[in-house]
Amino acid sequence: MENKKLEITLSGAGGQGIVVAGYVIVYAAGILEGREVVQVISYGPEARLGSSRSDVIISDTPIAYPKVKRPDLMLIMNQESYDKLHGNLKEGGTLIVDSTFVNGVLEDFAYKIPFTRYAREEIGSPVVANMMALGFMAKLTGIIKIENLKQAIRDKVKKSFVNLNLQAVEKGVYLAEDIINNKA
Amino acid sequence: MENKKLEITLSGAGGQGIVVAGYVIVYAAGILEGREVVQVISYGPEARLGSSRSDVIISDTPIAYPKVKRPDLMLIMNQESYDKLHGNLKEGGTLIVDSTFVNGVLEDFAYKIPFTRYAREEIGSPVVANMMALGFMAKLTGIIKIENLKQAIRDKVKKSFVNLNLQAVEKGVYLAEDIINNKA
Repeated sequence: MENKKLEITLSGAGGQGIVVAGYVIVYAAGILEGREVVQVISYGPEARLGSSRSDVIISDTPIAYPKVKRPDLMLIMNQESYDKLHGNLKEGGTLIVDSTFVNGVLEDFAYKIPFTRYAREEIGSPVVANMMALGFMAKLTGIIKIENLKQAIRDKVKKSFVNLNLQAVEKGVYLAEDIINNKA
Repeated sequence: MENKKLEITLSGAGGQGIVVAGYVIVYAAGILEGREVVQVISYGPEARLGSSRSDVIISDTPIAYPKVKRPDLMLIMNQESYDKLHGNLKEGGTLIVDSTFVNGVLEDFAYKIPFTRYAREEIGSPVVANMMALGFMAKLTGIIKIENLKQAIRDKVKKSFVNLNLQAVEKGVYLAEDIINNKA
């Protein structure tokens, strides 16, 4: 990707692995690829009601201001987060939603993928939907290399979950390839 | 603690559990205590050389600007981080260092505790030094309740490490009580 600075918002319900997904991106981009990265995890009183948000900035130059206002890229995993945040997307930005839980999407250009349903049906574990979404996002946009995404999972995820997470990434990459090939 | 807004910088070498320590604080303060919290994890190219930093803001009101410049509280776990960051401390702020690795400390008022040595010698695991430091910090400053620190560990740490981490917290609390009692 040629952006000098890329802003990403990840959001969903508690338990959907939003914070971990952000951390995998910053680890891959920052530690493995040596770029400047910042992750901002915010919890407020409303977080107790179930909404979780993690913002990530990846840059080729030092990041002076760590706040994401107009993300280039959003991954939204529940309807409540969509309703609250979708208007923040930068014009021309990329919007990916987990259509298992997000049904009312206004943007025609959004990528609507039932990550959680696929994770449950094809991998046997709905909780790896976050990693499937990362595989999809990484392949679609090139924000981090797939190989580094997999390495971040090997380095940072509980050993007993590594294989399921890697399977989920593969599925996400496959889904993105399908879209890329159909556009070509 | 009566601060309306508290800024914390945690820093150390890679592998000392700085990011996890910050996450435990934000989880305890944000999810369990329902306060406004932000964690900023920064990695730059220098992070590959081993330095890790995690900033946390806890506030009773929404946090508009997530950058920590003049922390009220610092936990520093290696000399390199000390050299780079100690000058940032707010006047009157609290400085805690792991004196296992930080030897050249200029501030007389600093709390110099060999967390890693204690963790190795008394708990049999140097990697829980981060949680011992959190127990110490929480008891000394009251930033989060000890019970919520323990609950955050139960909720968020790998099951097989929960007990070691709780032992480390207890030791840190004990060390702080010792200082508080000696001052009284």
